[in-house]
Amino acid sequence: MEDSSDRKPEDQVTRRDFLSIGGTGAAALGAGLLLGGSARNAHAAPPAPPGNAAGWPKEFRPHSAHPVYPPREAPRTGEKVHEFDIELGISVHEIVPGVKVHAFTYNGTYPGPEIRVPEGDWVLVNFKNRTSELHTIHWHGIILACEMDGVPNGTQWGVGPGQTFKYLFRAQPVGTHFYHCHNMTTLHVQAGMFGALIVEPKDDPIRRAFPYEREYTLLLSEIDTTMVERQMEEMMKSMGAMEKMHERPETMKEMNGRMMGWFADKAAFRAAVASGYVPPYVTSMRGHSRFPNFNFFMINGKSYPMTDELHIRSGENIRVRLIGAGAMPHYMHLHGHDFWHVAQDGHPLPAPIRLNTVPVFPGTTTDIVIQGTNPGMWHFHDHSDLSSTNNGIFPGGMMTMLMYEDSAAHGVKIPGIVQVNS
Amino acid sequence: MEDSSDRKPEDQVTRRDFLSIGGTGAAALGAGLLLGGSARNAHAAPPAPPGNAAGWPKEFRPHSAHPVYPPREAPRTGEKVHEFDIELGISVHEIVPGVKVHAFTYNGTYPGPEIRVPEGDWVLVNFKNRTSELHTIHWHGIILACEMDGVPNGTQWGVGPGQTFKYLFRAQPVGTHFYHCHNMTTLHVQAGMFGALIVEPKDDPIRRAFPYEREYTLLLSEIDTTMVERQMEEMMKSMGAMEKMHERPETMKEMNGRMMGWFADKAAFRAAVASGYVPPYVTSMRGHSRFPNFNFFMINGKSYPMTDELHIRSGENIRVRLIGAGAMPHYMHLHGHDFWHVAQDGHPLPAPIRLNTVPVFPGTTTDIVIQGTNPGMWHFHDHSDLSSTNNGIFPGGMMTMLMYEDSAAHGVKIPGIVQVNS
Amino acid sequence: MEDSSDRKPEDQVTRRDFLSIGGTGAAALGAGLLLGGSARNAHAAPPAPPGNAAGWPKEFRPHSAHPVYPPREAPRTGEKVHEFDIELGISVHEIVPGVKVHAFTYNGTYPGPEIRVPEGDWVLVNFKNRTSELHTIHWHGIILACEMDGVPNGTQWGVGPGQTFKYLFRAQPVGTHFYHCHNMTTLHVQAGMFGALIVEPKDDPIRRAFPYEREYTLLLSEIDTTMVERQMEEMMKSMGAMEKMHERPETMKEMNGRMMGWFADKAAFRAAVASGYVPPYVTSMRGHSRFPNFNFFMINGKSYPMTDELHIRSGENIRVRLIGAGAMPHYMHLHGHDFWHVAQDGHPLPAPIRLNTVPVFPGTTTDIVIQGTNPGMWHFHDHSDLSSTNNGIFPGGMMTMLMYEDSAAHGVKIPGIVQVNS
Repeated sequence: MEDSSDRKPEDQVTRRDFLSIGGTGAAALGAGLLLGGSARNAHAAPPAPPGNAAGWPKEFRPHSAHPVYPPREAPRTGEKVHEFDIELGISVHEIVPGVKVHAFTYNGTYPGPEIRVPEGDWVLVNFKNRTSELHTIHWHGIILACEMDGVPNGTQWGVGPGQTFKYLFRAQPVGTHFYHCHNMTTLHVQAGMFGALIVEPKDDPIRRAFPYEREYTLLLSEIDTTMVERQMEEMMKSMGAMEKMHERPETMKEMNGRMMGWFADKAAFRAAVASGYVPPYVTSMRGHSRFPNFNFFMINGKSYPMTDELHIRSGENIRVRLIGAGAMPHYMHLHGHDFWHVAQDGHPLPAPIRLNTVPVFPGTTTDIVIQGTNPGMWHFHDHSDLSSTNNGIFPGGMMTMLMYEDSAAHGVKIPGIVQVNS
Repeated sequence: MEDSSDRKPEDQVTRRDFLSIGGTGAAALGAGLLLGGSARNAHAAPPAPPGNAAGWPKEFRPHSAHPVYPPREAPRTGEKVHEFDIELGISVHEIVPGVKVHAFTYNGTYPGPEIRVPEGDWVLVNFKNRTSELHTIHWHGIILACEMDGVPNGTQWGVGPGQTFKYLFRAQPVGTHFYHCHNMTTLHVQAGMFGALIVEPKDDPIRRAFPYEREYTLLLSEIDTTMVERQMEEMMKSMGAMEKMHERPETMKEMNGRMMGWFADKAAFRAAVASGYVPPYVTSMRGHSRFPNFNFFMINGKSYPMTDELHIRSGENIRVRLIGAGAMPHYMHLHGHDFWHVAQDGHPLPAPIRLNTVPVFPGTTTDIVIQGTNPGMWHFHDHSDLSSTNNGIFPGGMMTMLMYEDSAAHGVKIPGIVQVNS
Repeated sequence: MEDSSDRKPEDQVTRRDFLSIGGTGAAALGAGLLLGGSARNAHAAPPAPPGNAAGWPKEFRPHSAHPVYPPREAPRTGEKVHEFDIELGISVHEIVPGVKVHAFTYNGTYPGPEIRVPEGDWVLVNFKNRTSELHTIHWHGIILACEMDGVPNGTQWGVGPGQTFKYLFRAQPVGTHFYHCHNMTTLHVQAGMFGALIVEPKDDPIRRAFPYEREYTLLLSEIDTTMVERQMEEMMKSMGAMEKMHERPETMKEMNGRMMGWFADKAAFRAAVASGYVPPYVTSMRGHSRFPNFNFFMINGKSYPMTDELHIRSGENIRVRLIGAGAMPHYMHLHGHDFWHVAQDGHPLPAPIRLNTVPVFPGTTTDIVIQGTNPGMWHFHDHSDLSSTNNGIFPGGMMTMLMYEDSAAHGVKIPGIVQVNS
């Protein structure tokens, strides 16, 4: 926290700071996409270990989690930059017929578009905020410069209404990752601000072991529709006012840190409380709980029976990328098969694990390979009965099917019913 | 979904379909236990991988998760068939003294009987439903023909009052599995419809590494006694009416898909909603939540202090099969010992893991080996304090003891108190 | 349960038993710190396995989870004994400014002091209870004599007001462990009765593979401040009365097992219920639920923004010991890095696993190594949005930062804001 060492405890961060630091970030990018600093030293390797330890496999290399590319470098001539425009707006999203919510959507979809780039190439995302709230994008699992990490009031300022922030980073490490808003996350992720981010390796060891042509990305998440709808409605009511404030810098300057709950450091925060400031978490102790009470459980924004099926043929391998984008663990069970759990957080496991049910935890990604060995129709669902419901009604929620396209050729007849009661 | 391709979107599944398809399944079994189809092709192996990858151990064979026996074959002359009669009825089950619920019981016990069969032999289960509700049995972890998988309205029709369904499958893969109802699972599993299913290998690598004579199976689950009791009472009140309907096919014919919430496909469902059908999950948004609020946490249907102890002697190995039969994760902690986590979902792990606390997730099975190295009495319990209570009172719930039978010989005196308050 | 075999089912444990058995334990320690019994036989190894199995690594040794030192031995001349005084009192603990609770504190801190001892040395803890409730200390993960295990009414009697209990055990096995009260755990752990216990190996394989100088211990837990404050207040109101009772043995003798909910065995408990005793869990079925509804999520007793940061420099390794001391799982995510998950429950994993998010389950310990490869400021937090809040307000809870001390040298400027709203 080098730059706050000379602040007095009673200092509070003003909106002016917010604007100027935000501007610096954008300027740096404009001035040659340079992220500053002595990049080469930044990822200096720790001293080499004196040899293998703990009985760990001979192949284990402690330094193999180091970034392949220095995270603070800027693109050089000839390096490929993939540019994406992502615009955040408000859309109406249908989870299942009869259940719609107002959502924050990246380019209009819930979840946002899948971003897929080759390892080592650059990604430039022009993130435009068309809502009245502050937002960011955090690139979950990516090793990048911390100015690009997307933590509001941490490594950048929240992107305000009408503003654009340019995220620039190299695609590393390889594997299954995701992105999501890091502001008011409890609400914003429920409201739809997440999407998949796949970094494709030049030579994929998983594909070598399990040759495959088709793959699926399944973002698992939850929503409390009552909480989201109520908070989105409140926000939309005040949108005009918020936007007017953002349009008049002189008003914004008056918004100081105390009003926003921002302080220079812990001492400043403690001093404010001592002099009468009441933090919002104290106020709410007198009111109702704001904890979400999830009632819909989704795969890619949809609940059963509206989830998309996985398709396979006998003799085929498919890869399924499971992403824990929400706040709860889920336990994905496949009927009639064992599958291989091959990677976690993007990285191949030390050895694949044979399972029929794999837990997917919040913030983790889990890759599995399903082998087409048993033609038919097979349920693939969260085995927690809490999450295989729609608003408490079974069946529903985080459930889909593995469908064999060659079932008929193997004499398998499938009723093919869609069911919303039991 | 080959057999529904010619249906019009507005089609709805009628009760007639239900009866006729149900009948076909039984007929096929009668006609020589043949499951149909070109079985040999069904489990064709994917192309062999071009070599080891990802630094994975040399011994890793991607195809080792393939079924050993073709899942769609029928028994041949000379192959052994183990026949079981399982009758579903309603019993009163006591969780702890003073707390009883009406339960759905397989052959009168909560949980149902453990089924244990040698690998590769056949299992024939005559499942008779003596209740007024629809039920099935799903064979969790078993690789079988999808007609035998037990998903209502998916791979079979729910087994109605008085009906018998014959489940036939080969016992594979080896290891710890379980069975449970797959209809209205949120309620039916709480109400007792689950049991262990162990497939014994010809040559058990775990037993070779850890010679053992005694083993224990612990089914972990939860119950909201208020929810179960209320719903079971409602059901029992309407039992006469339901049974009368099932006895009069002409009435049943009038029950169509809309009433039951069944539709031919997503388009049919969406069309119904467009024309005024209100799915049950929408209705309940106006009422109270039906989510269970678990208040008892059980090992084999009992809560502490009524759980059964595990017994061991110094120098002995015991194997404990932990089955996540409920909807919540549990974290089983053993005092005074480390144990080995040896298998997951029936399969030996790539390497055993030394632990004192092992998570057991919904839908998973976890085998551990405890070595008798420390005589005395040792608690073995879920380390989440939420689950070591009875209706909120500590101690209780998912807790038992590891008792050394030779404690006295080692000078260990144990008070042996049973406690229901603290 | 040797000493209860001659009890009649209707027997109930009287307070006299409690006092006399408690006294015996202390006397034994006084009389030469002898734990009794034929210690050498107690940890007899099971028969050697006939060879490696299950394709498990050649290095796998089934007996390597056996205790290195016989758990029932007493210290011998020349062996080192580390003596600690731990006094339990009541303190006011501040979670974040504006939120204070009455807490049970070991030596005045929430959590208690970290105990760190070399492998194989002895630990002697003089545990003095200065509150009006019964308490114990359970040494979670330690392989010791069961009289020292700290389970009230199981392996010892609860330590009463003003009493001192001497815990004596050898420090084994090596690694990250913890200690906590095992009486009324649901309340007492929330109220602060837990602390870290580190057993340092003579030769640390993790340190050999990842040379490090600095390490951090992070105890993760939760609290329902309303529940704790209400129950602590009730307790403090009745403190005078309780202490007076403890001072007058003739009153205590009248307190029998039925009043305390203690019974000789299951049959005695069942008989008491049959003759009219109403267990407390039945009573509460008529009242409100006592389940905690956690509203603060803590690292070492503090919530963001008051959590302590982790410090690192480029090129440095740090070790972080994560301890699941509470009742919920947490999913610790580090921004901008992959780290190595190296140990679980104290033991090196068969192979380290590369992750950016590691689950920490109740009752488990998880060691990770972070390598200083990316200068800046990086969030490290539970990725479940439920636990990154203070009383429902984001940001807060189980969140801290990884701070590079050499950020400035690498050109990284960090705003350094403390934020309690968004």
